[in-house]
Amino acid sequence: MSLQAIDNSDVRKLRQIAGEENVLVGGDIPDDYSHDEMAPVTAQPEVVFRPGCTGEVASLLQHCRGRGIAVTPRGSGTGLMGGAVPVCGGVLLDMGRMKEILEIDCENMLARVQPGVTLLELSEAVESRGLFYAPDPGEKSGSIGGNVSTNAGGMRAVKYGVTRDHVRGMQVVLADGEVLDLGGRVAKNSTGYQLMQIIIGSEGTLAVVTEITVRLLPRPPALASLLVQFSDLDQAISTVPRFAAAGITPQAIEFFRRGVITASEQYLGKAFPDRSAPAYLLLRFDGSSREELESQMDAAGRVCLENGAEDALIADTAERQEALWSARGAFLEAIKHDEMDEADVVVPRAAIAEMVHYADEVGERVDLRMETFGHAGDGNLHINMLRDGLPWEQWRSRVDAAMDLLYEKSEELGGMVSGEHGIGHAKRAYLHRHTDRREIELMRGIKELFDPSGILNPQKVL
Amino acid sequence: MSLQAIDNSDVRKLRQIAGEENVLVGGDIPDDYSHDEMAPVTAQPEVVFRPGCTGEVASLLQHCRGRGIAVTPRGSGTGLMGGAVPVCGGVLLDMGRMKEILEIDCENMLARVQPGVTLLELSEAVESRGLFYAPDPGEKSGSIGGNVSTNAGGMRAVKYGVTRDHVRGMQVVLADGEVLDLGGRVAKNSTGYQLMQIIIGSEGTLAVVTEITVRLLPRPPALASLLVQFSDLDQAISTVPRFAAAGITPQAIEFFRRGVITASEQYLGKAFPDRSAPAYLLLRFDGSSREELESQMDAAGRVCLENGAEDALIADTAERQEALWSARGAFLEAIKHDEMDEADVVVPRAAIAEMVHYADEVGERVDLRMETFGHAGDGNLHINMLRDGLPWEQWRSRVDAAMDLLYEKSEELGGMVSGEHGIGHAKRAYLHRHTDRREIELMRGIKELFDPSGILNPQKVL
Repeated sequence: MSLQAIDNSDVRKLRQIAGEENVLVGGDIPDDYSHDEMAPVTAQPEVVFRPGCTGEVASLLQHCRGRGIAVTPRGSGTGLMGGAVPVCGGVLLDMGRMKEILEIDCENMLARVQPGVTLLELSEAVESRGLFYAPDPGEKSGSIGGNVSTNAGGMRAVKYGVTRDHVRGMQVVLADGEVLDLGGRVAKNSTGYQLMQIIIGSEGTLAVVTEITVRLLPRPPALASLLVQFSDLDQAISTVPRFAAAGITPQAIEFFRRGVITASEQYLGKAFPDRSAPAYLLLRFDGSSREELESQMDAAGRVCLENGAEDALIADTAERQEALWSARGAFLEAIKHDEMDEADVVVPRAAIAEMVHYADEVGERVDLRMETFGHAGDGNLHINMLRDGLPWEQWRSRVDAAMDLLYEKSEELGGMVSGEHGIGHAKRAYLHRHTDRREIELMRGIKELFDPSGILNPQKVL
Repeated sequence: MSLQAIDNSDVRKLRQIAGEENVLVGGDIPDDYSHDEMAPVTAQPEVVFRPGCTGEVASLLQHCRGRGIAVTPRGSGTGLMGGAVPVCGGVLLDMGRMKEILEIDCENMLARVQPGVTLLELSEAVESRGLFYAPDPGEKSGSIGGNVSTNAGGMRAVKYGVTRDHVRGMQVVLADGEVLDLGGRVAKNSTGYQLMQIIIGSEGTLAVVTEITVRLLPRPPALASLLVQFSDLDQAISTVPRFAAAGITPQAIEFFRRGVITASEQYLGKAFPDRSAPAYLLLRFDGSSREELESQMDAAGRVCLENGAEDALIADTAERQEALWSARGAFLEAIKHDEMDEADVVVPRAAIAEMVHYADEVGERVDLRMETFGHAGDGNLHINMLRDGLPWEQWRSRVDAAMDLLYEKSEELGGMVSGEHGIGHAKRAYLHRHTDRREIELMRGIKELFDPSGILNPQKVL
């Protein structure tokens, strides 16, 4: 089915649904709505629609389904793959007004939230009640709806898993406006096919999520971090499996090299606690007591030193930990002030060092500056490719050449195209290239089943 | 499409594929293949096919797809809902010969196994390497393939989640014989729609799983258990949320009442460590050290006593723990020597006591003896309905009346039809009754997409 342009009567209808002030048209649409945080994908929506409730989303979709108008859902716009960019025009469905924390159910350890609630807002609300939402994507201003749509991962995935592992239920609006409640307030569920599981990570192409129920955990009373200096990256990476072998389970195991520290220091205007070593692991531990934490940290420090680490610096005060993790959190922003693109590959954990070295080699081969860092505990690397003032066409052609090589290598190592950022619009070609033809056909069948008119976030994922 | 009966030329073809000795026909088929461990569903297969490799499964399905012959996959046959019973005749696909542990990858903390490997075999193999497969369904002779097909839960779900949370990849054979590899050796994955997630829990109706990759964890070095006596069930259940509030995370929190202890003692011929109280919680803790464990146990004991517990008995030796957990593990067998049926409802954790009391009330109302116990930590109850020598028809009509009432109550409390045992053949009516019509339509669409001829495990789930 071909998608239709929006006319005046559509705008009138949308204004009836959500009110004048929540439907933006033409020149009133801020430029922000035409892009996300990175992908070289931009497109202006014809209309921005800002619903206040599920009923308004349902009415919008009923209307757009009937007329064949594209609808692109958007959370905070912090995606990196163009998933929330309205590449076919139509309606940009900004979920930002639906940002209520509907309920924090301490007895069942659940929170029920609207999709526009940010990760930061949810964390603060539950932590003040002694609880803890475990997924920890770096971008705290990202919305929970957006996190669900990409199955966002984050640093604490090593110990606690990804967004999928913490979603218990959701309310969604289907492409024709029907509202469905999936899953629920239950901790286990073997009741038929789990539609919710296919919607998680589908990037708004199958349904619009209007409410999310997530599980909460008791907030760990004690946290401490360890910054470990290594003389090279291989030594750092080869240490990672030894933690598990020694029964040590950090929340997070990040790796980076000296280069990115410089960028972060310049960006934050603050010195990083150490920059004497070529390569680092940064670990964070939680524990039910100070003693438990100390015994884990001691054991982890020993493992590092036995594996050739130069030193392991303990950060056990809130301030010292903040200095480390705010720097780590700023890596992406720090290098992104220059234009960049990114590969978010995930490989078997043991293959990380090989993948990083290959990325270095590719950078030299195609003559592109790359900064690679990421999640050593779960094999997820962010390989960032900087423009450095290159003419646009030249930069893009080098980026394309690098991406081709990197995704090929990732497949060879048993890896996948995306660990946590999704496919969006930018990485569709790589999804197709590195996925079995029949698997893609089944994905298309599922898209067709949920959205036969193809109005939901067209030209994304598939 | 209507299913076809098997003729002599089919049998010849099947024998060509898997060899004479792996295709059983007619009177050579043991009665075991006509039922599972409980459901009052029995049916004789026309042929039993016992493949030795994925290629043989693929050839079988190619043939059966062409001929329209039903294929019912079966693991160890320990299901409780008739999921592995060939209710439409045809081929019973016994995966029992495919029971190789293909690889234990210590560096990436993964195991790759064939589906016929039992839970016990996998646990022993990984534990001898200091590792740990966290899902813990009670039936240790159940196969990993069967566990994946029902998304089996088990006792450690409180801390570690269910089977879904531990599956990283799988190889499946589609209904037309094509082989697909889904997921992989990666810890995170946001690469398109996750078909694997819809196959988990689909009870062999969408594809036949021929290989499974699961994640492993470091084996906790220290374990201890706590048996807590309460004067009534409400007191026991109301204690459960307080553990989490106090930052205490047991592996397992089981509840039961005195009645089931008697049955277990008779069945095992061994005295239970205590039978002085009307109601119990049984908790198990793990820890990275003896000290951590002791501090958790102390804190849990205090919480119980503050909430009115009469006493909390510590079991910290392997023998004492074995006495408790072998009794807990035997509850189902102990009451099942009498014929029984079961509701496997899951409700929000805070609603367990209400559900148990309602089950008691229903038992009185329809005049049926019920034994209810289960997983207090995650809201999953097993309500067992005993025949006690009643005439079959009378027993079945009372069971049906009780099931109707129980599933209605469960829905009212925000619960679901199955927490961990699945829908199989036995609970299809309840899935339909308590699931939104549109959700069922989408499930049917997915079935049609994966298996347009309807040969895979027909009349199951939907």
